[in-house]
Amino acid sequence: MGGGSTVFGKFPERSCEELGGEAVLAAIEDAGIRRKDVQFASCATVFGGYCIGQRVLKEVGITGVEIVNVENACAGGATAFRESWLRVATGQYDVAVALGVESMTTSPMVGKLIEPPADDLEGQMGLTVPIFFALMMKRRMHEFGTTLQQAAQISVKNHRHGALNPYSQYKKELTAEEVLNSRMICEPLTLLQCCPNTDGAAAVVLCASHIAKRYVSKPVTVAASALRSGDYLYRWKDATFSDMSHKAARQAYEMAACGPEDLDCIELHDPFTICELMHYEDLGLCEKGEGGKLIESGATLLGGKIPVNPSGGLLSKGHPLSATGVAQVAESVWQLRGVAGQRQVAGARVALTHVVGGYVAGLESGAVGVHIFKI
Amino acid sequence: MGGGSTVFGKFPERSCEELGGEAVLAAIEDAGIRRKDVQFASCATVFGGYCIGQRVLKEVGITGVEIVNVENACAGGATAFRESWLRVATGQYDVAVALGVESMTTSPMVGKLIEPPADDLEGQMGLTVPIFFALMMKRRMHEFGTTLQQAAQISVKNHRHGALNPYSQYKKELTAEEVLNSRMICEPLTLLQCCPNTDGAAAVVLCASHIAKRYVSKPVTVAASALRSGDYLYRWKDATFSDMSHKAARQAYEMAACGPEDLDCIELHDPFTICELMHYEDLGLCEKGEGGKLIESGATLLGGKIPVNPSGGLLSKGHPLSATGVAQVAESVWQLRGVAGQRQVAGARVALTHVVGGYVAGLESGAVGVHIFKI
Repeated sequence: MGGGSTVFGKFPERSCEELGGEAVLAAIEDAGIRRKDVQFASCATVFGGYCIGQRVLKEVGITGVEIVNVENACAGGATAFRESWLRVATGQYDVAVALGVESMTTSPMVGKLIEPPADDLEGQMGLTVPIFFALMMKRRMHEFGTTLQQAAQISVKNHRHGALNPYSQYKKELTAEEVLNSRMICEPLTLLQCCPNTDGAAAVVLCASHIAKRYVSKPVTVAASALRSGDYLYRWKDATFSDMSHKAARQAYEMAACGPEDLDCIELHDPFTICELMHYEDLGLCEKGEGGKLIESGATLLGGKIPVNPSGGLLSKGHPLSATGVAQVAESVWQLRGVAGQRQVAGARVALTHVVGGYVAGLESGAVGVHIFKI
Repeated sequence: MGGGSTVFGKFPERSCEELGGEAVLAAIEDAGIRRKDVQFASCATVFGGYCIGQRVLKEVGITGVEIVNVENACAGGATAFRESWLRVATGQYDVAVALGVESMTTSPMVGKLIEPPADDLEGQMGLTVPIFFALMMKRRMHEFGTTLQQAAQISVKNHRHGALNPYSQYKKELTAEEVLNSRMICEPLTLLQCCPNTDGAAAVVLCASHIAKRYVSKPVTVAASALRSGDYLYRWKDATFSDMSHKAARQAYEMAACGPEDLDCIELHDPFTICELMHYEDLGLCEKGEGGKLIESGATLLGGKIPVNPSGGLLSKGHPLSATGVAQVAESVWQLRGVAGQRQVAGARVALTHVVGGYVAGLESGAVGVHIFKI
């Protein structure tokens, strides 16, 4: 497997075609294949418009192959990756590309997703994305005594990692005081506890194992792929736990015949600090309610027992919605190959990616994708 | 396999969720399964917005399953069907739903697709969708002597079929004079040679063969599935032939071990009269340039040697973009089961569906899906 990514950031002057083309060419180069080897492409976007895959592949001169464009809100990247993996794993094709791309600074639709949907009760009550997660944080503080300092530490950690990643939107370390004193978005979530709007693209090349062995002696392998939707908000029994993430992770662990204790590094969905705390628990890194203690322990920092979001995560690397899930896979491939530079997790052998989409008002039941990689 | 569809038409008061939900429930009933049997859903839309599959499945109370939302312009329905077929054919799941849905009368984006793209040379020159096909028709008239009467006969035939189909947007027969005397859209294409804007949804249920045999002694089987993109407009060597349709059809015939001579009925992509004439040739029903003679012969009319678009096609049944490819599959399933009512093709055993998307200015290289079904 090979990965490619643009730098994430705000690039209103760059089109989706240009961003996507750069990522695809980088992934092809990283994998050591040629453009004409590509037999299938799956491309995820939320805001990039119609036939995004066709438009990007035209940019790089790949024609005539099967192209599937997918959308699954923030989980689109994991969906695209799974599409390509399925094609290769079931023998339909030998070489496939998965791509995710967004130009969020130029899309007139970005505001629409953040506006509360007018034809939905929760929307009418103002349940926008940050408010949704602020309420979950409040509940967590009440139930488990999670502190503002613990939440701030998530942002501090991920910005420390992001500062080491050349692909990151923000390459600046922050203190907990800076995080907590930044502008209030929705109490208790401050600006620096929320991911930014981001433009960017990421791509991954997958090969059948008999092809991969032509290029490398020890290829990265896909040990598990799980994608599922969840239950409706009004049926959630617990506002501090993502049941769909828990179920997808369990499914992936079973398929990979491993558990959370076997993981060396993790890229997980941290659009808000509270999310990372919650996902520590639903992915099984610690007991329910213990997420705050886990970040305090330093275990999830680079050099810790189980580094989480060594790339900088959504908070620091940025979050071009559909590109995120693919970028997580590219990061994992680089970590397992030992080429992740200053943010390398020493000796990483097993990596997990986790991304969640659309489980807020109006897009209920959403999608969650979990993948496990081994070398 | 079971199929379900809403009536196609203009229903600005009905949401995508409502349209899609009606189609899914109808397909589930037609297949004789229960809602809880569904393990996977693929949902296609161009205009329906984010997480369309999640929103429709919520409407009918299906939760927790894997959902993939796809987009491939007008070929989205074939893409969704292929997604679900792949899942079942490769043993990932036993029961899958494929869905396509559009509310074109309410989407503010419909006009955008028909507007020439401003950042594209062909767009700046005014190459909108009807103009593109009008130019192809002109070329065909020049090269093969195709006549206006022959083109009009396509519309007459499909409206005659559509008048027999309760799901059709237009249930009224037309004369060639009415077709040719209707308002000029782009010379030589008149209004009644162009498909309408349509709201609607269609769904199909697929089961693994060991499951299907619990319900029917002789199930409809998927004999071939092909999906590919084409080459860029500027590389087309022949404006009277769809090379990508030809290649996809050849791929499907090979997979199904049959040829055009084995087909009993066909649902093909007729957004404009000229398209059906062209696809007669690229699907191999007749020699290149002979499409005009084929329609004149009456062979493609119900009761003829190889009825084409017994449903009424896009011209009469209507064209809710992503729903079309799924509706074609539902129609084929009904034809093969012998339950297509007044539009039944007597003794149909082999059916082919063909849909093309996005090969006009701005969305170049597009997608074409061809499927073959047998009973």
